[in-house]
Amino acid sequence: MTTLRVPEVVPSPTQDSERLRKAFKGVGTDEKAVIWILGHRNASQRRKIRDTYQQLYHQSLIDRLHSELSSDFRRAMILWTYDPAERDAVLANKALIGKKKGFKQLQVMVEMACATSPHHLQSVKQIYCTLFDSSLEEDIATHISFPLRKLLGALVRSYRYDKELVDMNFANSEAAKLREAIKTKRLDHDDVVYILSTRNKYQLKTTFELYKQRFGNPIDQDLKEYGEGDLESLLRAAVQCIYCPSKHFAEVIRTSVSGLGTDEKSLTRAIVTRAEIDLLRIREEYTKMFGTNLEDAITGDTSGDYKHFLKTLVGATV
Amino acid sequence: MTTLRVPEVVPSPTQDSERLRKAFKGVGTDEKAVIWILGHRNASQRRKIRDTYQQLYHQSLIDRLHSELSSDFRRAMILWTYDPAERDAVLANKALIGKKKGFKQLQVMVEMACATSPHHLQSVKQIYCTLFDSSLEEDIATHISFPLRKLLGALVRSYRYDKELVDMNFANSEAAKLREAIKTKRLDHDDVVYILSTRNKYQLKTTFELYKQRFGNPIDQDLKEYGEGDLESLLRAAVQCIYCPSKHFAEVIRTSVSGLGTDEKSLTRAIVTRAEIDLLRIREEYTKMFGTNLEDAITGDTSGDYKHFLKTLVGATV
Repeated sequence: MTTLRVPEVVPSPTQDSERLRKAFKGVGTDEKAVIWILGHRNASQRRKIRDTYQQLYHQSLIDRLHSELSSDFRRAMILWTYDPAERDAVLANKALIGKKKGFKQLQVMVEMACATSPHHLQSVKQIYCTLFDSSLEEDIATHISFPLRKLLGALVRSYRYDKELVDMNFANSEAAKLREAIKTKRLDHDDVVYILSTRNKYQLKTTFELYKQRFGNPIDQDLKEYGEGDLESLLRAAVQCIYCPSKHFAEVIRTSVSGLGTDEKSLTRAIVTRAEIDLLRIREEYTKMFGTNLEDAITGDTSGDYKHFLKTLVGATV
Repeated sequence: MTTLRVPEVVPSPTQDSERLRKAFKGVGTDEKAVIWILGHRNASQRRKIRDTYQQLYHQSLIDRLHSELSSDFRRAMILWTYDPAERDAVLANKALIGKKKGFKQLQVMVEMACATSPHHLQSVKQIYCTLFDSSLEEDIATHISFPLRKLLGALVRSYRYDKELVDMNFANSEAAKLREAIKTKRLDHDDVVYILSTRNKYQLKTTFELYKQRFGNPIDQDLKEYGEGDLESLLRAAVQCIYCPSKHFAEVIRTSVSGLGTDEKSLTRAIVTRAEIDLLRIREEYTKMFGTNLEDAITGDTSGDYKHFLKTLVGATV
């Protein structure tokens, strides 16, 4: 379900490093070559290129990309070049230490906790400690206030069971607990936080389905009706990421290109983090939900190397 | 700081498996040979023996130990043969599904969360899911009630930063928060749970030292004075495990052999789980704290193969 196109015969990491070096040389950078190489390698291939580049030229590839590229294209290419867990750790840190800390910035942590594997989330927390000399949980507590702190803290602390196992009794009783908390507008209730941050995804999907059957509305609709502000938005994102991540990311992309101006950070995040996971499904979902295709959205809202790179990642013939 | 004595020339896993097979053969088991082999191999060597034994004889070594040995010796030898993370997962599960769920049973989870590395705790949670088709957090929520559930749930969810980094401002303000919660007898206060389950161990040690400087008593003494019941005991165990794990385990061993009868489960747990970590220091601490040595305590309170095995693990010349 990846949109990534890796050539049938992949050059060796040394060949790739040499070509990248050549693309960086002299005045101006050959951005197309950089996209052509890194935009067509998977995470483990990129890792090997980074290691080889470092060995050959005693320089970090990330640092070199930083000095050679600029603007949104640079940001996207560097994020892409990171290992997936390292990338999420960097995104979470930027969200936490940034000036603005609303739903738009913070939802990356909901995505990490609800739309990736428990194993990936562990790796993110591990690498977060290494990179930022603090645990992710501590930084959430330092930089985010209640009630968002309570929800995000619990979500990133989760280690969910990751196989399909559903207990109907729990699903029934927890659907009722969720309904009670939502109806009484206590969206930060311990039950809500515990259920969303602990139960496995199959269990939660069943809970959400029972919720709809018993109480008439989908849970995200009720959250919108009874809740408000960033907490409500983050909870809805959590539900969506658990229930159907591709819908969530299709919406993130849609929102980022809608209206005046483009939210490049969100657009980049959605495409770069999902390119090797489910971007093909996100493309389909996008077309279904908005009656237009994702490639056109990118073409209409971006330009230059940034556009070229995003289109490469979504699998367009560029 | 391990008390484990591995021979200078270690036999190959195949040789060890063959000798174990021989020890199991015929009527009666050669328990001494089993102790001689497994009691002198480290975790990675035991892992290889298990794998090799399975390949050679198409039978699990654990199952075979179960059918050949009995009583406390069997329990200890099987726990020892497990991988460290697997062992803690099994111990936590037994504590959670057992009939008695007091401080004595539950403290193993405090030890995992406060006296081992963050990485080890992650491995325990991972293997817990594989072995028991549920996450450790979920099982805590199912089997344990408030307020212990709140504390244990938070502790096992922790992923602490594991390097030495101390923020004096946090240490100061959090010492005051802890004092306030303890003085007002709100031992399950969010602040207490958050601080103990999130901060790195160096940070917490500083916080505890500042606590003593500012408020006169060591925090564990205040916990004892203002708190009560299992919550107080678990909190004190958490403080002790963070501040000085060897003291904690020396006390566990002392309690297990004190009074009438022996608490073999606690004794086994302390020795088996710490043999490869800090049992040498625990031995020293034991002598310092109780004016008698740990070997004598084992000799006085245990017998037969069980005694022989524990003495092997504590590094006695048996």
